[in-house]
Amino acid sequence: MHELDASDPLARYRELFVESPDVVAYLDGNSLGRPLKATGPRLSEFVTSEWGYQLIKGWDTGWMTAAQSIGDYLGRVALGAAPGQTTIGDSTTVLLYKLIRAAVDLRPDRDEIVIDRDNFPTDRYVVEGIAAERGLTVRWIDDGDVTVDRIPLSDRTAVVVLSHVAYRSGFLADVAGITAAIHEAGALAVWDLCHSAGVVPTRLDAWGVDLAVGCTYKYLNGGPGSPAFAYVRSDLLPELRQPIQGWLGSDRPFDMGQGYAPARGIQRLLSGTPPVIGMLAMQDMIALIDEAGVDALRAKSVALTSYAIELADELLPEVELSTPRDPARRGGHVTLDHPDFEQLMPKLWERGVIPDFRRPTGIRLGLSPLSTSFAEVELGVRTIAELL
Amino acid sequence: MHELDASDPLARYRELFVESPDVVAYLDGNSLGRPLKATGPRLSEFVTSEWGYQLIKGWDTGWMTAAQSIGDYLGRVALGAAPGQTTIGDSTTVLLYKLIRAAVDLRPDRDEIVIDRDNFPTDRYVVEGIAAERGLTVRWIDDGDVTVDRIPLSDRTAVVVLSHVAYRSGFLADVAGITAAIHEAGALAVWDLCHSAGVVPTRLDAWGVDLAVGCTYKYLNGGPGSPAFAYVRSDLLPELRQPIQGWLGSDRPFDMGQGYAPARGIQRLLSGTPPVIGMLAMQDMIALIDEAGVDALRAKSVALTSYAIELADELLPEVELSTPRDPARRGGHVTLDHPDFEQLMPKLWERGVIPDFRRPTGIRLGLSPLSTSFAEVELGVRTIAELL
Repeated sequence: MHELDASDPLARYRELFVESPDVVAYLDGNSLGRPLKATGPRLSEFVTSEWGYQLIKGWDTGWMTAAQSIGDYLGRVALGAAPGQTTIGDSTTVLLYKLIRAAVDLRPDRDEIVIDRDNFPTDRYVVEGIAAERGLTVRWIDDGDVTVDRIPLSDRTAVVVLSHVAYRSGFLADVAGITAAIHEAGALAVWDLCHSAGVVPTRLDAWGVDLAVGCTYKYLNGGPGSPAFAYVRSDLLPELRQPIQGWLGSDRPFDMGQGYAPARGIQRLLSGTPPVIGMLAMQDMIALIDEAGVDALRAKSVALTSYAIELADELLPEVELSTPRDPARRGGHVTLDHPDFEQLMPKLWERGVIPDFRRPTGIRLGLSPLSTSFAEVELGVRTIAELL
Repeated sequence: MHELDASDPLARYRELFVESPDVVAYLDGNSLGRPLKATGPRLSEFVTSEWGYQLIKGWDTGWMTAAQSIGDYLGRVALGAAPGQTTIGDSTTVLLYKLIRAAVDLRPDRDEIVIDRDNFPTDRYVVEGIAAERGLTVRWIDDGDVTVDRIPLSDRTAVVVLSHVAYRSGFLADVAGITAAIHEAGALAVWDLCHSAGVVPTRLDAWGVDLAVGCTYKYLNGGPGSPAFAYVRSDLLPELRQPIQGWLGSDRPFDMGQGYAPARGIQRLLSGTPPVIGMLAMQDMIALIDEAGVDALRAKSVALTSYAIELADELLPEVELSTPRDPARRGGHVTLDHPDFEQLMPKLWERGVIPDFRRPTGIRLGLSPLSTSFAEVELGVRTIAELL
């Protein structure tokens, strides 16, 4: 056993995940987390014991409130969010649309949305669409890490949309400091937590975050295309109005009455029927994170990314490290850039080494603390070096 | 065996569904279809063999196009839609929002949306929200069955939003005739197929339908909260723009470039990552419908509803039949109204008889042709009569 795995207090969690016979080093946990061995049985058990046996009664015995109860659970375990502020639902894109539209409406006298060019495409596309439909101007932050001084804040700024961890570089933004500056300018912040939820602890309540959205199929292992989550700070909830008015976000859905009135709490973010089957898998992973503790996860994540950087320094001198060396400014993945990486990818896959690739030249090593070993990191970087 | 079951050519399909030990008559297939016995194993097999083994490679071997391929399959089997016009995704509510917004933008010189007061709450709430945000007027059709002459069409009408089968009464609208009248007025029709998809065959292409949305957890047995489907007639696709601009609805998602350009085909309806796990269960049911044939399903559905009405006439003389007697104007469920029905529901459930209830006084018998027996219908109606 690799000596770093031998001394890893979280090593025992690895055996809880499904192993793929074709994969020797899975380094793409930031794109799709591995399933737990518990997940398959949980799904088939759900089909027979809940859906099949309870049938429609399931809506009265948990399904109807599952989006909020799993949201609360996630909020407590991984987000630093008190109950009543987090819900599961829709996709990241749809929730970004809902929250940014809602945020813009909370600042009706302002006409600018700020976002960075390096942000994930969906975030940028949603912002551009909303700006066009609402007659707002997009103020762009040019390429590069987002720090307070680079954000063009003014009394025209309605909303700023930023990522906690940059999807490409892995840069970790100072959420508390940036949010405070945005508030000082009278604007609202929408944080994308896709690349931090489940690997970098957040303190949403303590940091004064207004609104946040994140993904559950990366470090929360919800499965391909599992629904996203959204956070709304409790004091914003009473005035928050999201644009997709559906029956399950209404005050009294089963009255089926005339005229939409939003539900009182975070439920007003809902539109249609909650995706019950899609929310099953993530629950086992949230439970594991709860057991292991987010701080222990973060410690291992830092150790994994530090080790990857150390190996890259040693074995890949011709490769550019695009991720911050300072662990305090680094998320859960490490990005290496080299012009030949695109050609390298099929060869790596043939060898069972699965990192992520982002055009034009970036290999991302996404290291999920509960399922990734130090041995995998070493094998991965050594294979890249060998093939390059 | 009930004599009607003995002569039912589709009777053999019943044993393919999970049986609930607590339920003797499941009459709520229009709210939540029963799972197939194949569904649990399919889900757990997916977790190990696809998600767990293929990991991120799964996106290259089918997941990325699953929303469109399952959409095409559904379109062929149940909707009368040629390929390239149907996709799975989001919820009914979110897809209604996307399509109605898109439809309104296709008629920029018109300022009215028409919908009926009897339509499902989500349809009405979405329309009201869009009207408010786009400065349009909602023209209401008052309570009652929707026929051509009751639709207030004019040169101000942009879009008409109607249900194929009314969720409360079960009234079956004349889609082809109404759509033709809407077109004659220069407007677009958005049809809600939630209560018809999988039980009443549609001929969307032949009927000239513009846009349609439907549910997959009723007669398509996709499981609680499974994603919805949408249809866009092919000649409308090139000019159709939906408001929630996400990376997976963009032209070249993996370029991750600047500026959103919509994908060429039905894929432009997508926003975020397709809900892969959520789309699994419905596939087995679509395959069964394909095998049995929609016309055979419709024939059994008519026989089931006719039998329910016959029994109600005989055993429940004090109850009002709210569903059309003419089978040509009736969908897959039968609604009975009586002031005491709300109190009756817990007692029915205690006896394992599970119809649906809609306030204030409606019991809906939702009869799913492949999983409901005539014996169940008889037991259900007899139990209602006994308890009333």
